[in-house]
Amino acid sequence: MNPTAAILLIGDEILSGRTQDTNGNHLAKRLTAIGIDLREIRVVPDDSATIIEAVNALRAAYTHVFTSGGIGPTHDDITADAIAAAFGVNIDVREDARAVLASHYDSPTDLNDMRLRMARIPDGASLIDNPVSKAPGFSLGNVHVMAGVPAVFTAMVESLLPTLTGGAPMRSVSVRIDRPEGSIAAELATLAEAFPDVSIGSYPFVTHDRFGTNLVARSPDMTRLKQVEARLLTFR
Amino acid sequence: MNPTAAILLIGDEILSGRTQDTNGNHLAKRLTAIGIDLREIRVVPDDSATIIEAVNALRAAYTHVFTSGGIGPTHDDITADAIAAAFGVNIDVREDARAVLASHYDSPTDLNDMRLRMARIPDGASLIDNPVSKAPGFSLGNVHVMAGVPAVFTAMVESLLPTLTGGAPMRSVSVRIDRPEGSIAAELATLAEAFPDVSIGSYPFVTHDRFGTNLVARSPDMTRLKQVEARLLTFR
Repeated sequence: MNPTAAILLIGDEILSGRTQDTNGNHLAKRLTAIGIDLREIRVVPDDSATIIEAVNALRAAYTHVFTSGGIGPTHDDITADAIAAAFGVNIDVREDARAVLASHYDSPTDLNDMRLRMARIPDGASLIDNPVSKAPGFSLGNVHVMAGVPAVFTAMVESLLPTLTGGAPMRSVSVRIDRPEGSIAAELATLAEAFPDVSIGSYPFVTHDRFGTNLVARSPDMTRLKQVEARLLTFR
Repeated sequence: MNPTAAILLIGDEILSGRTQDTNGNHLAKRLTAIGIDLREIRVVPDDSATIIEAVNALRAAYTHVFTSGGIGPTHDDITADAIAAAFGVNIDVREDARAVLASHYDSPTDLNDMRLRMARIPDGASLIDNPVSKAPGFSLGNVHVMAGVPAVFTAMVESLLPTLTGGAPMRSVSVRIDRPEGSIAAELATLAEAFPDVSIGSYPFVTHDRFGTNLVARSPDMTRLKQVEARLLTFR
């Protein structure tokens, strides 16, 4: 069995529709590639009680929880404190995080009180390297806390993933059919029954008022996928 | 108090990273515009037990739940049955839905057994009109079940929203600051304290290795927003 995961995206700006999240999709692809099965994505607002409840529900249910957002220097950055509260541990400015952060600024006075908030790390956490803007993320238990800015999030993901144990990478094959899915649904159901170990998804699309279907088969076993692909090609 | 809402996105293809969801962002913007407060987005796989659990948790917690995905004709389309199970009601082909669906096809034989799955409607539900491809969505209690294909989803949203009661639309003003947020965080915290009725968010960005910040204030009260905007402009 592969390790499992959830992503928790934190931010009012996603729920208001102002921001189209891309961090979830980016990390989903990276996790699929290393054999960690993403089972849930949840988006919650910048509200401490809600974050605490979600973190505790998700960390109990999955091998890993990855969070995005709310670890900057401003008043609305409350994720680190919420994570500490979720685990029931203390949080304070930590010397190693302060040193990392200080290396980003030209002058010591640039590291003002608000920026120092970014060096607040819950007790027992290990830092996640941020090559873009220094302010670190952190892992506490099975919860990995990262920034919301996509350039920083994706850099932190690359710092973190080599430290995690993956599983059998999920492979996939796709076949595009220029017919509506309703015309192939019966054959497809028969095929899915014949290959219970392969997950077969049907994704209809509409372009220029024509209906088509992408058929996607997923399995860690490429031999089985090739057998399914050969059958899917006959649907064309 | 405005009505509240959650969006439940159903589909393995989002969790594998194959598909970048856009339905959540689209509906988030539409809900904000009509004064329904979106409090959560959740993405779950095509797994019946998981869908049932999520639907029951979300419909108990929010005024409305909007689902996307899994109501097509293929074997992996299990949402309608899961919704019926979540409510503990029967589901079967319903005559009004069958008639709507039949109007989409040139020949009666095109409405094959698999396509007829799209006329399966839980007892007590009302249909949501689908001007794109006819197969209807449905509302059961406070749960509104719509398609995953974006062109169909957005059309169903426009069919549904006029039937819902909104609240005070959330307004917002944005000010872009070409400085990193750490340099204005203290003034911003003071401003946020002075306007406790206005939600003020700080969204840093990185472009060409330069750090900047979008400051966004949200409130239904445009007079208050204009006061905050004037203050934000002095941060430039």
